[in-house]
Amino acid sequence: MITKMFLFANAAAAAPANLPWPMPSDFTSGTNTVTVDSGNFMFDYSSVPSDMFADAVSRHAKRTFTHIGVDTLPASIQLTGLDISVVDADESHPQLETDESYTLTVPADGTNAKLHAQTIYGAMHGLESFSQLVMFNYTSEGYEVANAPWTLTDSPRFQHRGLMVDTARHYETIPALLEIIDSLTYAKVNVLHWHMVDGSSFPMQFKTYPKLWDAAYSSQERYLQSDIAQVVDYAHKRGVRVMVEFDVPGHASSWCKGYPEICPSPTCQTPLNVANNKTFEVIGAMLKECTGGKTSQKGQPSGLFPDNFLHLGGDEVNTGCWSQTEAVADWLKDQNMTADQGYAYFAKRASQIAISNGRRPVQWSEVFDHFKDQLDKRTIVHIWKSVTNVTEVVALGYNVLLNVGYDAQSWYLDNLNVKWDAVYSQEPCAGVPDSLCDKILGGHGEMWGETVDASDLEQTVWPRQAAIAERLWSPREVNDPAEALQRIENFRCLLNERGIRAAPVNNANARSSPPGPGSCYNQR
Amino acid sequence: MITKMFLFANAAAAAPANLPWPMPSDFTSGTNTVTVDSGNFMFDYSSVPSDMFADAVSRHAKRTFTHIGVDTLPASIQLTGLDISVVDADESHPQLETDESYTLTVPADGTNAKLHAQTIYGAMHGLESFSQLVMFNYTSEGYEVANAPWTLTDSPRFQHRGLMVDTARHYETIPALLEIIDSLTYAKVNVLHWHMVDGSSFPMQFKTYPKLWDAAYSSQERYLQSDIAQVVDYAHKRGVRVMVEFDVPGHASSWCKGYPEICPSPTCQTPLNVANNKTFEVIGAMLKECTGGKTSQKGQPSGLFPDNFLHLGGDEVNTGCWSQTEAVADWLKDQNMTADQGYAYFAKRASQIAISNGRRPVQWSEVFDHFKDQLDKRTIVHIWKSVTNVTEVVALGYNVLLNVGYDAQSWYLDNLNVKWDAVYSQEPCAGVPDSLCDKILGGHGEMWGETVDASDLEQTVWPRQAAIAERLWSPREVNDPAEALQRIENFRCLLNERGIRAAPVNNANARSSPPGPGSCYNQR
Repeated sequence: MITKMFLFANAAAAAPANLPWPMPSDFTSGTNTVTVDSGNFMFDYSSVPSDMFADAVSRHAKRTFTHIGVDTLPASIQLTGLDISVVDADESHPQLETDESYTLTVPADGTNAKLHAQTIYGAMHGLESFSQLVMFNYTSEGYEVANAPWTLTDSPRFQHRGLMVDTARHYETIPALLEIIDSLTYAKVNVLHWHMVDGSSFPMQFKTYPKLWDAAYSSQERYLQSDIAQVVDYAHKRGVRVMVEFDVPGHASSWCKGYPEICPSPTCQTPLNVANNKTFEVIGAMLKECTGGKTSQKGQPSGLFPDNFLHLGGDEVNTGCWSQTEAVADWLKDQNMTADQGYAYFAKRASQIAISNGRRPVQWSEVFDHFKDQLDKRTIVHIWKSVTNVTEVVALGYNVLLNVGYDAQSWYLDNLNVKWDAVYSQEPCAGVPDSLCDKILGGHGEMWGETVDASDLEQTVWPRQAAIAERLWSPREVNDPAEALQRIENFRCLLNERGIRAAPVNNANARSSPPGPGSCYNQR
Repeated sequence: MITKMFLFANAAAAAPANLPWPMPSDFTSGTNTVTVDSGNFMFDYSSVPSDMFADAVSRHAKRTFTHIGVDTLPASIQLTGLDISVVDADESHPQLETDESYTLTVPADGTNAKLHAQTIYGAMHGLESFSQLVMFNYTSEGYEVANAPWTLTDSPRFQHRGLMVDTARHYETIPALLEIIDSLTYAKVNVLHWHMVDGSSFPMQFKTYPKLWDAAYSSQERYLQSDIAQVVDYAHKRGVRVMVEFDVPGHASSWCKGYPEICPSPTCQTPLNVANNKTFEVIGAMLKECTGGKTSQKGQPSGLFPDNFLHLGGDEVNTGCWSQTEAVADWLKDQNMTADQGYAYFAKRASQIAISNGRRPVQWSEVFDHFKDQLDKRTIVHIWKSVTNVTEVVALGYNVLLNVGYDAQSWYLDNLNVKWDAVYSQEPCAGVPDSLCDKILGGHGEMWGETVDASDLEQTVWPRQAAIAERLWSPREVNDPAEALQRIENFRCLLNERGIRAAPVNNANARSSPPGPGSCYNQR
């Protein structure tokens, strides 16, 4: 029997226990259990000319068959291989436009499973789904796929599914960042938004302005550009984009330590000094170091951060320091600008620097709220406040990223009293006309780092990031926390099995410890 | 200038920032900074005929030089190699008696550093120390050793330095266990005490009695014997012993699920049924599966758990169920035993099974408190209660393991309100005559798992386990928390740098998050 499972008519309908998270956009499953011949299993990617993909298959094979030295079981019907094909094995850095769709079939008749995708990144998602379909049976001591035959025809609802990590309130170590990237791929999250610097510290190396990282917390809590390249390369190989943010002109007081002249005064440091051309020289040099100053010959962005998006912040700007600092106030007067117009000038000039380096600028809500359709149409508006009217933004033609919930900040992962089901219940297109929903590119879980360092990063992020991941990947109708509860508990246990410190799902305080002895699968 | 640093005369004397943790038993340092030629650095272990050690060197090299693609710096004096020698490259599983001493010299004149040890396990400790002496200089963008020349003549004060992990209150995943083993080696902790089963669950596979793990929390939260072999092998290769515990006759109600006949009754389950010979058949079969039933030809223990120690629990036994269950009460009467004598009979019979399988039995305080010098002299008494008089135990000739603090349970890592400095302030030989202190083999941090799963294991254990590690490794006089504070904060940051989720050192609640933005090195 084959059951069409797509779109739950009844919230009480139980999903198959091995259904991958996030729920595939379309799938059918059956009622057979197929034994997997793990000892002789062949992932056949011989038609995919990509060493990078070969490495990905090797990683996924280890994740699929986790036990060492398990014998192959005798069984009449065995699954012995997965045949993989992709239309274009291009290894370029993934971008917003990358096709992530895949089709995966797991027959119940002993013929090989098949995975087909447009790109290697889509195929990686298919491998992830396959690893979640396969489960170990501790009674028979072998691997099997329950609820076969399976057909997954899967693609994301939103192209941009991200996690923001703040490395300014606390330094996050390189191993912590690499493991977070691995964990993102388990939930098909494809963007790491790296909030690199802020008022409290400046950990990143810049070679043109080498005193910027004098504002690192210590001599050790720093990122060499080679460290960053390692992180970006690691993400690239796993289909994860890295979007870096330099938040200007507010949230930038750390910049003043090395270069006090780009700040209004030692006692009133931000917004950065709009009156001094050196401020823009510094930003220009930084973005040039980040981008390589150009796109590659294939039209692909290159440089340290090859992603097409570059985040320039722009939130929470209080122009008081400009008015209070004589030199800046005089300059504004000479330019015939109000302080607010100075903010507009700053935000636009920063945005133009990003554009001139071949990048689309991303800016927080306030930049749109102040300047509306004066913004370059390539700008992406990152909405975090309810005062911003999403429909107005998209109706004016801008693309949008969002952390849904706004003032309740449901997708702010540092809000520890927001439970997974509140996170899960948010609809990105709520209140937006269907015809405009496609201007919304996706969104982020936002992991602000005031109380988050390498000791608690993963349990702050997980499992709530999984709730966000499903709302951004799966169809709009997959939105019922009651239906999702056991599935997300299963996924949390899978994260633990893979060494990721996801906290219990149903905690009142999101990252607290399990309340008492018991099974991972039922921490309620 | 060379300064003899051993034994701090003044608590305010600052230790060199790159001094390894735990503090070496004897060392001298200097005032020169030597550049390290990381690009061409040679770890020369050609005289050590051990593939296992070659792998260890490779791991340590990656830990020493963590940044990828750092260029070698021009410098007049450079350290270009570490020459390693060991007296005996035996790869046998480490045991209590393994010599862990090493000598490490790092000259300031450009000649090679030298590491010499009796065993490969001592050499691994030396490699760990070397990795902590080398630091990255973010200004020069190269590695260096500050405070050279160095001479470390190092060996542990106690031979048994352990962490107990409880996998019964919560299942701990294999990746979590492997990473904990790695983390132990960073602090030269050499024993993982695996509290495998307890009343709440029985995750381990036994082939002779395959229904025992019916009491696992779920179909998935189980350890195959091949998984366990993987953990033990991983530990072995890192110089970490794995001491397994089966806690009998109390703390064993999970055993009743698969084999109800070895329990007094369905409503009164423990202590296990002393009156039924099958109880001892089960224990005998379990220990045989764990030990292989023999030692190898070289006299080395073999089997799934090749460690010479086997923990049989024995704590918190309430014989009420024996008195209340007619069949057991009758049997005791027939044997002319009181219930307490029945407990003695049980503990001794279990102990004899361990001995007959070539292992030294370890039993908790109460077993000694009840039976004193009736215990086989090979028994190791694991003291956790202040009612146990340590001096009496060692004066009777027994070896001791302890978690110091007793009723305050300072080394109980699940006591979250015990801060690192309380942990650090405990002296294992307090109150014991100096002449008997050598009967104390060492001790453990005890990580009882009521609220600990894969999500919070590491921050429950670290950094307090580091405090225990230093008290067990370093000389008795190294005991001042004020002196140790900055050093343990540095070590905690090192753990984070290596991907270990050690919590901030000075937390009031041991595993809580950092209180606010700031540097890892100063979370106070």
